Amino acid sequence: MRIGNVRGRPWLVTGMERGVDIHESSGGRLGQGFAELYDNWEQVVQWADSVRDEGVPFDHAQLGPPSPHPRQVFAVGLNYFDHVEEAGLAIPQEPSVFTKYVSSFAGAESTVELPQGSVDWEVEVVVIIARTARRVAARDAWTYVAGLTVGQDLSERGLQLTGAPAQYSLGKSFAGFGPTGPYLVSCDEFSDPGDLEMGCLVNGEPVQKARTSGMIFPIDVLIEKLSQVTTLYPGDVIFTGTCAGVGAVRTPPRFLSPGDELVSCIEGIGSIRQRFVAAAAEGGSA
Amino acid sequence: MRIGNVRGRPWLVTGMERGVDIHESSGGRLGQGFAELYDNWEQVVQWADSVRDEGVPFDHAQLGPPSPHPRQVFAVGLNYFDHVEEAGLAIPQEPSVFTKYVSSFAGAESTVELPQGSVDWEVEVVVIIARTARRVAARDAWTYVAGLTVGQDLSERGLQLTGAPAQYSLGKSFAGFGPTGPYLVSCDEFSDPGDLEMGCLVNGEPVQKARTSGMIFPIDVLIEKLSQVTTLYPGDVIFTGTCAGVGAVRTPPRFLSPGDELVSCIEGIGSIRQRFVAAAAEGGSA
Repeated sequence: MRIGNVRGRPWLVTGMERGVDIHESSGGRLGQGFAELYDNWEQVVQWADSVRDEGVPFDHAQLGPPSPHPRQVFAVGLNYFDHVEEAGLAIPQEPSVFTKYVSSFAGAESTVELPQGSVDWEVEVVVIIARTARRVAARDAWTYVAGLTVGQDLSERGLQLTGAPAQYSLGKSFAGFGPTGPYLVSCDEFSDPGDLEMGCLVNGEPVQKARTSGMIFPIDVLIEKLSQVTTLYPGDVIFTGTCAGVGAVRTPPRFLSPGDELVSCIEGIGSIRQRFVAAAAEGGSA
Repeated sequence: MRIGNVRGRPWLVTGMERGVDIHESSGGRLGQGFAELYDNWEQVVQWADSVRDEGVPFDHAQLGPPSPHPRQVFAVGLNYFDHVEEAGLAIPQEPSVFTKYVSSFAGAESTVELPQGSVDWEVEVVVIIARTARRVAARDAWTYVAGLTVGQDLSERGLQLTGAPAQYSLGKSFAGFGPTGPYLVSCDEFSDPGDLEMGCLVNGEPVQKARTSGMIFPIDVLIEKLSQVTTLYPGDVIFTGTCAGVGAVRTPPRFLSPGDELVSCIEGIGSIRQRFVAAAAEGGSA
């Protein structure tokens, strides 16, 4: 099952850029908004199975985030062995957890203003939670997952690394720095949802390529650990960390420039595309 | 003006533990929930000015958080000169920003399970945002504030300081670690909302006492800096940092124990009270 955010409304994807508005198609019973969608996930899954409508076309460029206003956004730093190695850091003993503020969210195709000169890419598989999870064991964790989508944890390295200790959240939350999409894909669509090819390209050149099985704390372990401390709610979003190939650790470092295009893809889900432009002059003080 | 969360509904406080349900009292026009309350803040302020009803009693112990499900929660570390000094750290160049996940929220009087042996207190003044703020200058920032409330940024120092760099968010987000209340108090009720006495007591013994004017980045500057990166939305919550007197920096360190009672107060707002108990054995792994 694939769920898209088409012009702000939950759609069931029925074919190649075709789908049905869930609220309309369910006779007003489901999917009035994304909060209702995820709060009634089991019913959505059952209903979707019965849909025979082949749907109407939509435009990939109009796809918003599959979970546009989650109650909580978790993001994990340093969660791939190859990325920790390229950064010259020690393997974490516990997941390094920060947030991306929802005002940074964007959809599958977006334009991002570059606030500074050191904006870096981080392709990530993003988990969307299906039901309330509290103290869930890893062996049960996948049953709490609605599905996966593609995300970029765009990072302004200057602000991210300011301070002692560095607090990543703000440097990773500029406007447009949290695009996700194009769809939520439910776990049954993957032969192994914990082992997917992931990658991203800058202006067509591959810069990251790995498999999600390279995580230090795999998705089921992350859910166990997060749900030991917090309660995960339906629609909550987890950015699960990036693999090797970021720009900051290169010699010399390489960052995104105005005019660059970044395409991020994950096997079995699809791709998202961000274009970068110089920051516009705006009102207000700096 | 004082707004309370009485059994999950927005109330206008009209006297000592008396008030009116805003939704009922406004004829269904305002305050159906807290999202609607803050999204229509100007109308609420105007309406409240006309209320002559002396209200009905409510119980202080039933007061929930004044903004129970904000879109975004900001928390600032190391934001008082005296606290940075007691911690032996350098004055930050930029605010150190993390989040407290909303599953940690609680109301004015609550019981908190101690997950580990190193849970510390941090009394803080908490800001609630009234209207969308993007690139706001400090000189205009107070006009974006709905009001202030009392908060505790309870912190499990073990998990907080795990990792390199330490990521505070998770260690400060155990269940019940983000109590706020008793009321939102609008800024016009203070002669200077940027200079209030704050403090907390453990079992009646004062452990923190300072003035909010001791902030490194005062509230107006925080709003300027946060709104340069993110967009602040109505109802968003900012924990603004704690003053000197935390337990972790004492010799020997002092942490909260089962049976302890923590009272936190801010001049002109009121006080909140948390009781601590040992963690209950629960199902699930770990």
